[in-house]
Amino acid sequence: MANFNLMSELNRAGPQRIVLLILDGLGGLPIEPGGMTELEAAKTPNLDQLASEGILGQIISIAHGITPGSGPAHLSLFGYDPLEYGVGRGVLEASGVGMKVKKGDVAARGNFCTVDEHGYISDRRAGRIATEEALPLTKRLAEIQIPGVQTEVRHVKEYRFAIVMSGDGLEPDLRDTDPQRTGVPPLPVQSDSKNAQKTADLYNQWIAEARELLKDEPKANALTLRGFSTDPEFPQFEDIYGLNPVCVAVYPMYKGVSCLVGMDVKDFSGDKPEDEFAVVSTIWSSYDFFFVHIKKTDSMGEDGNFDGKVSVIESVDTALPALIQLAPDVLAVTGDHSTPSLLRKHSWHSIPLLLWAPSSVRPDDQNVFGESSCARGGLGTFHATSLMPLLLAHAGRLEKYGA
Amino acid sequence: MANFNLMSELNRAGPQRIVLLILDGLGGLPIEPGGMTELEAAKTPNLDQLASEGILGQIISIAHGITPGSGPAHLSLFGYDPLEYGVGRGVLEASGVGMKVKKGDVAARGNFCTVDEHGYISDRRAGRIATEEALPLTKRLAEIQIPGVQTEVRHVKEYRFAIVMSGDGLEPDLRDTDPQRTGVPPLPVQSDSKNAQKTADLYNQWIAEARELLKDEPKANALTLRGFSTDPEFPQFEDIYGLNPVCVAVYPMYKGVSCLVGMDVKDFSGDKPEDEFAVVSTIWSSYDFFFVHIKKTDSMGEDGNFDGKVSVIESVDTALPALIQLAPDVLAVTGDHSTPSLLRKHSWHSIPLLLWAPSSVRPDDQNVFGESSCARGGLGTFHATSLMPLLLAHAGRLEKYGA
Repeated sequence: MANFNLMSELNRAGPQRIVLLILDGLGGLPIEPGGMTELEAAKTPNLDQLASEGILGQIISIAHGITPGSGPAHLSLFGYDPLEYGVGRGVLEASGVGMKVKKGDVAARGNFCTVDEHGYISDRRAGRIATEEALPLTKRLAEIQIPGVQTEVRHVKEYRFAIVMSGDGLEPDLRDTDPQRTGVPPLPVQSDSKNAQKTADLYNQWIAEARELLKDEPKANALTLRGFSTDPEFPQFEDIYGLNPVCVAVYPMYKGVSCLVGMDVKDFSGDKPEDEFAVVSTIWSSYDFFFVHIKKTDSMGEDGNFDGKVSVIESVDTALPALIQLAPDVLAVTGDHSTPSLLRKHSWHSIPLLLWAPSSVRPDDQNVFGESSCARGGLGTFHATSLMPLLLAHAGRLEKYGA
Repeated sequence: MANFNLMSELNRAGPQRIVLLILDGLGGLPIEPGGMTELEAAKTPNLDQLASEGILGQIISIAHGITPGSGPAHLSLFGYDPLEYGVGRGVLEASGVGMKVKKGDVAARGNFCTVDEHGYISDRRAGRIATEEALPLTKRLAEIQIPGVQTEVRHVKEYRFAIVMSGDGLEPDLRDTDPQRTGVPPLPVQSDSKNAQKTADLYNQWIAEARELLKDEPKANALTLRGFSTDPEFPQFEDIYGLNPVCVAVYPMYKGVSCLVGMDVKDFSGDKPEDEFAVVSTIWSSYDFFFVHIKKTDSMGEDGNFDGKVSVIESVDTALPALIQLAPDVLAVTGDHSTPSLLRKHSWHSIPLLLWAPSSVRPDDQNVFGESSCARGGLGTFHATSLMPLLLAHAGRLEKYGA
């Protein structure tokens, strides 16, 4: 993994700029024997040009065989071994919608759900109610007052919200209330340690009030809470790498994890690759590390939509010249994990990586960006946490180690 | 990294001989897009023959993205993870000219420099004075006597010397006196811990005497000291690997690091590849591990001399039959790091590796020794500290692990 002491010792300031372009769930699989993956099937003349000028390789996100969730996968890309740097889903979700989770706060991710007349869950996602329906409900929940603590509630997306509780003596050592199936009631908040009993009680009070406020709703008449957690206080990106980083992403989750490592998060409108690249262009002089996140490759993969994933990759390729025109010193294009349409979910397969750095790259003999070419690429196969040191080196922003 | 416990448990005696031929800074870069690297441009029929019979791969010296200095790079080749096995430059330099640095001694690397009438440094390397000029000055410094301690001073090369101070209660926790720029005076020796204050005082006394002896010199009228350090007491090569190792190198630095891991260091005259290989031939029956170091690939790279580096590689290739004639059981040819002429300095790029072992190698389909072929080689890309176990195995000198 990235050795943070070494990085903070060796990094040096400079005008060089690095772009890390993540196509979520980029890696894929052929849908028939002998066929091509989504990335291979996509027409990507711009990426292929970069592949021909640059060097390819494969990265492993967590460990061989491990299918990563989005949070750990991104931490790994940023150089934080997720097996060492754990972060709760509640904190991720809350940070993603701009809530600050301070040390000692306890955040959770909330789902609206539907319960029947016995209080048994009939739909764990409240019929996936639309954002417009959920927003006023979330506002109602935000009004709840529990003596002795403050609670902040914000809507995330559709049936999802985030909650942060602040106060003295709170502990995040709590179990999820989502029983992960229907036909049973939501679980009460249970503490896994004596110290967390008070927090469990407070959260149960809050849930009781919330249930009262929601009881007459047709769909979202109950809720579950998951991923209780507090600020993990990670070492910050700038201290480790000497970079001034910014996140350009559409989805809250990715903003959240960027926030945790100390990136600025840029708000903007639009959700297409060209919108995101246009944002990078407007803030080009203000930062030297740009994490740009494209979500829809993953969404299409999870939908089992091979052609849809191909289209998203092609739309990134079409928009790419706007990014290249900025003349980054280093541009890396990769994914956080694989999401093959064939499997309709995240997978453990290695992730194709393209590294382009005109002043210092040692090109290999690969000329297209795809899984097969990356498997033969000059960088070999390595752990995702080694990516950041490699990007810094290619940017000329790491000193020599030892005499 | 090499697991030393495992190595010392599994190694077994035998008549098999291993040659590790290091071309310093071997890895390179093309100087124009689509071009060849130095190693690829060089005509190397003998190395190519070995490549065709053997197997290729790439090694990473310290970690992805990290540009190694020579000391750590060689420790890594010898199986010692330099992030765990640190060694000061003073000890390296002193060992390199044959001085023993015992535990508790404090060694430093010295540079002659030029100071103006205000005592400000005008040349940090005393005009890079020649060895013949520096030798008598070093002898003068060797005469200095400081009550309570012994000091030994030896010339290293040109403007460089090494000093070792021995006595009771010495501590190496001292800062460099080289301010790393001109127009300011050399710094006094300052201690970084209370325990080292006495050592700082002793070294400052020594410097005062030295300055007095040098004050009328036209160029070398002052000095700076760097890399204060003591014997790191590394586990020894023979204990770990069961090998009886020897170092055949021209430059002090490489002799120094070999000494630290317990290699014999062979003195000889001549500095060409054929001279070094001739030495190996004369001591062939006395050792079973031969570390042979060629310096000038690196020097040419640092000079930005692409053609010069090509020539040095070709001269090694031309001399190679003398080495092959000895019929080593295992011959590995690689570098300690890359030094692309394009960059004129050490770099982080992976290092091409050729492993030849007629009795046990599984050949790949590569037929020339170069960066691209090594990237496609059968050994893949791996950490330098895994090289020694691989060499031992191919020599038939490692037992099975477990039943």
